[in-house]
Amino acid sequence: MDVRELGEFGLIARLASGLGAASDSRLVMGIGDDAAVWRTGAGAYAIATTDTMVAGVHFLPAKVAWRDVGWKALAVNVSDISAMGGTPTFALVTLCLPPETAVEDVDALYAGLRECAEAYGVTIAGGDIVSAPVLSVTVALMGEATVSEAGEPLLLRRDAARMGDAIAVTGPLGGSAGGLRALVEGTSAQHADLVAAHMRPRARVETGNVAVRSGVRCGMDISDGLVQDLGRVCEASGVGAEIRMDDVPLFAGLGEAFGDDAARKLALTGGEDYELLLIAPDDVLRASGLPLHYIGRITGDGEQRVRVLNAAGNEIAIGTPGWDHLRPHAEPRS
Amino acid sequence: MDVRELGEFGLIARLASGLGAASDSRLVMGIGDDAAVWRTGAGAYAIATTDTMVAGVHFLPAKVAWRDVGWKALAVNVSDISAMGGTPTFALVTLCLPPETAVEDVDALYAGLRECAEAYGVTIAGGDIVSAPVLSVTVALMGEATVSEAGEPLLLRRDAARMGDAIAVTGPLGGSAGGLRALVEGTSAQHADLVAAHMRPRARVETGNVAVRSGVRCGMDISDGLVQDLGRVCEASGVGAEIRMDDVPLFAGLGEAFGDDAARKLALTGGEDYELLLIAPDDVLRASGLPLHYIGRITGDGEQRVRVLNAAGNEIAIGTPGWDHLRPHAEPRS
Repeated sequence: MDVRELGEFGLIARLASGLGAASDSRLVMGIGDDAAVWRTGAGAYAIATTDTMVAGVHFLPAKVAWRDVGWKALAVNVSDISAMGGTPTFALVTLCLPPETAVEDVDALYAGLRECAEAYGVTIAGGDIVSAPVLSVTVALMGEATVSEAGEPLLLRRDAARMGDAIAVTGPLGGSAGGLRALVEGTSAQHADLVAAHMRPRARVETGNVAVRSGVRCGMDISDGLVQDLGRVCEASGVGAEIRMDDVPLFAGLGEAFGDDAARKLALTGGEDYELLLIAPDDVLRASGLPLHYIGRITGDGEQRVRVLNAAGNEIAIGTPGWDHLRPHAEPRS
Repeated sequence: MDVRELGEFGLIARLASGLGAASDSRLVMGIGDDAAVWRTGAGAYAIATTDTMVAGVHFLPAKVAWRDVGWKALAVNVSDISAMGGTPTFALVTLCLPPETAVEDVDALYAGLRECAEAYGVTIAGGDIVSAPVLSVTVALMGEATVSEAGEPLLLRRDAARMGDAIAVTGPLGGSAGGLRALVEGTSAQHADLVAAHMRPRARVETGNVAVRSGVRCGMDISDGLVQDLGRVCEASGVGAEIRMDDVPLFAGLGEAFGDDAARKLALTGGEDYELLLIAPDDVLRASGLPLHYIGRITGDGEQRVRVLNAAGNEIAIGTPGWDHLRPHAEPRS
């Protein structure tokens, strides 16, 4: 059997099960959430995450600016820290470079990394540079958890959704997937906003901080598509979910660019928007004061899956729910 | 200009200079040592490092066992933590996998990672799995610094060598490079000990801990070759160094396998031995009680370079001093 047959999530489950129970009692959250969390001292908790971008797989060097690749390589990691309600601190950057890589391209990539680091208060503290046949950038990002006055970590977990909870997102969806489509179709000049959403995602660090301080305990960032990511919350929490399609906020201009049906599909399954998905009782979400889009509700545990409903309350079939890194769709990823 | 012309260390210097001064006052050690160090709380300091192994560059899949690749991918990172005098804690593992990779090979690689994690008390807490044209394994490893009773971090730094200090190593050198040579020449069956030194390196965590508690303040691990690595200490500390060739401990069987001249060259320039290089006043090193090999002395700051001396005290020319990841030697790396 090859890894493509097993798929990314099958492989992660297989490898994680082989690891057994963590031997270190300081570990609060291991494999299976947006980032790992462990205790580093009295009332102090580290968060750590890592994400890789491979040329030709996660971005097409001929179609995008190196500076944007650098920004995105760090921003997607910042998003994982925000998806735990934490704040990023220090990063390690690994560059795998073919020997013929132009130094100017590496300069531009690093300029984008620096720009993103400054935007989120991250210090690049080290890394590794190696020769490789294919260019890739891997960022390992550390951060710290938001902590209660009693010294307990306040986290956005995937396994904390409860029946009746409201489901909200922090911003419009589908822009990134629309930008990818524009890049692939060669129409990026007409769709600069969409391309920017794809290559210059913003992480919701402040929003995540406010959410956990307001008592929100369940959430993640939308990296692989709303339906797929919400499906993971359902699986981890042992619940189901309903989304009201008409309440899902579409990225501005998405319908005009691709038509309403395609726009909806991009918003539901496109991925890489890096908005936060927040799940909590209505009053908790409303008391947070955050400007949220309420899109659905957590249902009983009969079926641990996501149902997308139209205005009449009937389920809409949506096909492939999102992105699996080892089982690519027919479309290129970017 | 391409990155090969600039070389790994030129590129690191270029990128590091672009980062400017760290904006985060908690950073104790950034780019330029074996690992980064920062303060996480009262009397608590995090250490973080990352290292990548690329198939065909850092190991030849056809010639080595996947389990050994997994061991080594983590062990070289553990060595970086030990090279700061610290103790490893949590790891993130990134696998870049071609879709046709056999699941059994990934299982074996992960078994080696787990074996190494258990040996050094490391918990694998997360990571990333992505599709890529070339297989690589990147480990980001976190650890904690050894701390004095006053709560100050006790570190092995590269910039703390002083004139007159003794230079010691914690074990024999050249075994790993000899193992690489045996693998390349197809004689690994006759040289199992050397191949084991190459694929199953041991990190000196306990030794590093004892060294910093004994007052040793300067050191690193020998990853790119004794002469090149000691040269970095010289550069960082603004000193020179003399090595007595006859006192450099050779890995057992190295002379018999390749002849005395080649054995000496492997020990001086081979790299990947992961023994520690410890530099301190004689009495500090001797009081540590560690079983050390004393191989030389730090000299004045006239020339910030390493001189290798024969029994008569004359300098020996040694050619290429060690490994640069973007400017490979004529020989393959493994």
